[in-house]
Amino acid sequence: MAKSWATLGVDLHLDPTGTQTGTGTGASTGAGVRRGLTDALRDAVRTGRLAPGTRLPSSRSLAADLGIARNTVADAYADLVAEGWLTARQGSGTHVGMGVPPTPLRQWGSAVVPPTDTTRPRRLRSRPAYDLVPGTPDLAAFPRTEWLKAARRALTSAPYQALGYGDPRGRIELRTALAAYLSRARGVRADPEHILISAGISNGLRLIGTALRARGSRAIAVESYGLTAHWQILAEAGLRTRPLPFDQLGTNPAQLTDELAVLLTPAHQFPMGVPLRHDRRSAVVDWARRTGGLVLEDDYDGEFRYDRQPIGALQGLDPNHVVYLGTASKSLAPGLRLAWMVLPPSLMEEVAKAKGDIDTCGVLDQLTLAEFITSGAYDRHVRAARLRYRRRRDTLVDALAQHAPDVHATGIAAGFHAVLSLPPGTEQSVVQAAAWQGLALHALSFYRHEHAVAAPMDALVVGYGTPPDHAWAGAVEALCRVLP
Amino acid sequence: MAKSWATLGVDLHLDPTGTQTGTGTGASTGAGVRRGLTDALRDAVRTGRLAPGTRLPSSRSLAADLGIARNTVADAYADLVAEGWLTARQGSGTHVGMGVPPTPLRQWGSAVVPPTDTTRPRRLRSRPAYDLVPGTPDLAAFPRTEWLKAARRALTSAPYQALGYGDPRGRIELRTALAAYLSRARGVRADPEHILISAGISNGLRLIGTALRARGSRAIAVESYGLTAHWQILAEAGLRTRPLPFDQLGTNPAQLTDELAVLLTPAHQFPMGVPLRHDRRSAVVDWARRTGGLVLEDDYDGEFRYDRQPIGALQGLDPNHVVYLGTASKSLAPGLRLAWMVLPPSLMEEVAKAKGDIDTCGVLDQLTLAEFITSGAYDRHVRAARLRYRRRRDTLVDALAQHAPDVHATGIAAGFHAVLSLPPGTEQSVVQAAAWQGLALHALSFYRHEHAVAAPMDALVVGYGTPPDHAWAGAVEALCRVLP
Repeated sequence: MAKSWATLGVDLHLDPTGTQTGTGTGASTGAGVRRGLTDALRDAVRTGRLAPGTRLPSSRSLAADLGIARNTVADAYADLVAEGWLTARQGSGTHVGMGVPPTPLRQWGSAVVPPTDTTRPRRLRSRPAYDLVPGTPDLAAFPRTEWLKAARRALTSAPYQALGYGDPRGRIELRTALAAYLSRARGVRADPEHILISAGISNGLRLIGTALRARGSRAIAVESYGLTAHWQILAEAGLRTRPLPFDQLGTNPAQLTDELAVLLTPAHQFPMGVPLRHDRRSAVVDWARRTGGLVLEDDYDGEFRYDRQPIGALQGLDPNHVVYLGTASKSLAPGLRLAWMVLPPSLMEEVAKAKGDIDTCGVLDQLTLAEFITSGAYDRHVRAARLRYRRRRDTLVDALAQHAPDVHATGIAAGFHAVLSLPPGTEQSVVQAAAWQGLALHALSFYRHEHAVAAPMDALVVGYGTPPDHAWAGAVEALCRVLP
Repeated sequence: MAKSWATLGVDLHLDPTGTQTGTGTGASTGAGVRRGLTDALRDAVRTGRLAPGTRLPSSRSLAADLGIARNTVADAYADLVAEGWLTARQGSGTHVGMGVPPTPLRQWGSAVVPPTDTTRPRRLRSRPAYDLVPGTPDLAAFPRTEWLKAARRALTSAPYQALGYGDPRGRIELRTALAAYLSRARGVRADPEHILISAGISNGLRLIGTALRARGSRAIAVESYGLTAHWQILAEAGLRTRPLPFDQLGTNPAQLTDELAVLLTPAHQFPMGVPLRHDRRSAVVDWARRTGGLVLEDDYDGEFRYDRQPIGALQGLDPNHVVYLGTASKSLAPGLRLAWMVLPPSLMEEVAKAKGDIDTCGVLDQLTLAEFITSGAYDRHVRAARLRYRRRRDTLVDALAQHAPDVHATGIAAGFHAVLSLPPGTEQSVVQAAAWQGLALHALSFYRHEHAVAAPMDALVVGYGTPPDHAWAGAVEALCRVLP
């Protein structure tokens, strides 16, 4: 039962029975209501409906809003302060904590980290049993031993000058390794001179956004579905985001007009999971050529296609009008903070300037990744990961067919996430039911641009990259329990 | 003999004999003039007098300016294009290459790297024999083996969640290790919650500058001498830099008024080499308390004092009004791109927001540095480095006393650089003579703010950190040859 929390303008989905175990006990007791309220508040913070720093209403007014006892609210607040989700400052009331994982953490699969690193939650019941928020690969499968071997070889053989202040484009060893790899694996036309290393794709978008703004651009076309974090970064750089229509054939670029640039995920639309259709691929490149526009191709998971060979990057069609963005965050680990852009030669100078006069990415990991790629370890790791994620997707699809015949995985067999279409009107209740089951996942609406041009659709976005292998069967089982 | 190059507004210091070997041959030959011109142009690019991207005058007009044959200019241009310093684009003339190490590289001791990583200069005569530009420690002494051991321990023991998207403040392991270290080694009052990891001090200044600008600040006080790169970063963040007077007692903070912040190097003024006097230390902190101002304490080489125990950080006097900035760039290597800020609690949220919603620094090096510090390896490395640099400074001071009695090393025995005062009017000619000798170094005027409030002084800033140990005696010998 959704209760509107007038004071904050968010809906709290309170389970009126206060139970999540199905035992049916404690139906209307204070303890049950208190647990229901703490869970609902925690979820509101975790999903971003309550932003960090937000001041909460007094326990008195919230109690009145919800029609429950004031002490119950005060106790719930106290629990959440003890767990680190909320902070209580003397004289200034209760606030959502700043140490709570901020937006992209929530977007990118880290909803499960404790609210702050140092505040050990008193009880860990707030930690979901399974993390199905998309964006983070299986970190338990990070090839530590191979990586350390590569680090040893790289650091042993590097000239000592490599440890000094560096070229803002990044280390030449890595740019050279990437040029060869991207050409072979993704059909990218790249030479090392026009590759720039960034601290993740989001950092890369910040640099390009800054460069575009310096060119006088004030807006950029985006897709109707995508990452709020990316739109925010572009907005911070001074670019308004204008979504393109999304229809049954995917993103439709026909309405591109005088924007200087468009941000797309051509190989595997995030999160909708469809590739950009071949005629629309051509149309985008034609538009860029005709108008001098720029296509930002976010190829976040381009190496991971399970039904066929990956389609080559759009950049291969026109390196002068397409910026290719790739990352080690999905193929290896986000913590490396290594991503790459292949830039049209005309844009390199401005993007490098936006990065600064010197490199801001550590050279040791750059040298190690270069060695990791050239030694073949990267290919081996990607092949093994592809097999692992493909199996997980297969398990998921089989389980759906068997246990949730009304729910369908849409999109191509690729990447680390699936979109599960739901019967109309069920999205929020399924997400809430999932939270009760200890499943962290996002509704499709979480990824919908506020000005999206797309028919509404109820769906879940289920990431299957994050749980370790041993947890996957349990995660699928828990998921099937909450599906209609 | 300085010839003014009217077309570009820079002075080219052409040796009219065209010789640098002292053989006296080839006095006015085309080959000698050509070599003199290429060296002078190369030096102008290297020192930043000719900025990357600058369009050079046609060979015809430069030849006319300098009163030499057009072919000589054309040949010199061709040499420098082949070496990668210049680029010749068809139809658009000759430009200073973009791959040439930009400002901070020149400022911070990397003037010796070849102009681009991939363009192998045909002849390496442009590479100085000795690099005495301050800012880079002895990279040959980077503790590779110890670092790899720490990396293995850190990566082996890290929880796999550490490899995901992270807290914008940086890894808690590193912040915890730094809090203890900085308290012990520098008298900093820090807790891990208020430490933020940045990609170098320059990156940290960018974040603070952005936060201050967001608070409405439009100007920041700086010292009359310092790093142009830092002033540029603050300017890019929207803050005008206003220099404080520098007198015989060092930087004078008496004129601080309504600025929101001041950037200082209290332990060891860069580059002048004096500490901030005790009464002025108090005055700065008093000003900050009185006005709610903020002191940015750049403690780039605080661990390296040779005459006594280092003076504790200013931050210890008032953690609520001082931002402490430290770095691994001097104690270990710039390539790590790891620095730290200890922030007043009231500023953390804004600075973290300027960094972004997620960490942009790689976690592996953060975990490794944490392990390196807590295992004691960092202390051992700093102790060994202190001894090494102290010996170099002693060698330098002894050599000056013996061979250049008119030149004095001013400033305290600390850090990695010395200021050598010169007889009035000799600064530029000594720098040029040094270039002929294959010595890369900077005049003091290179570090002077354009609105400096300080009596002019002829001096060299000599970095003794960069050359490997075996090269130091040779570097001192070469330096003494060019001193008056």
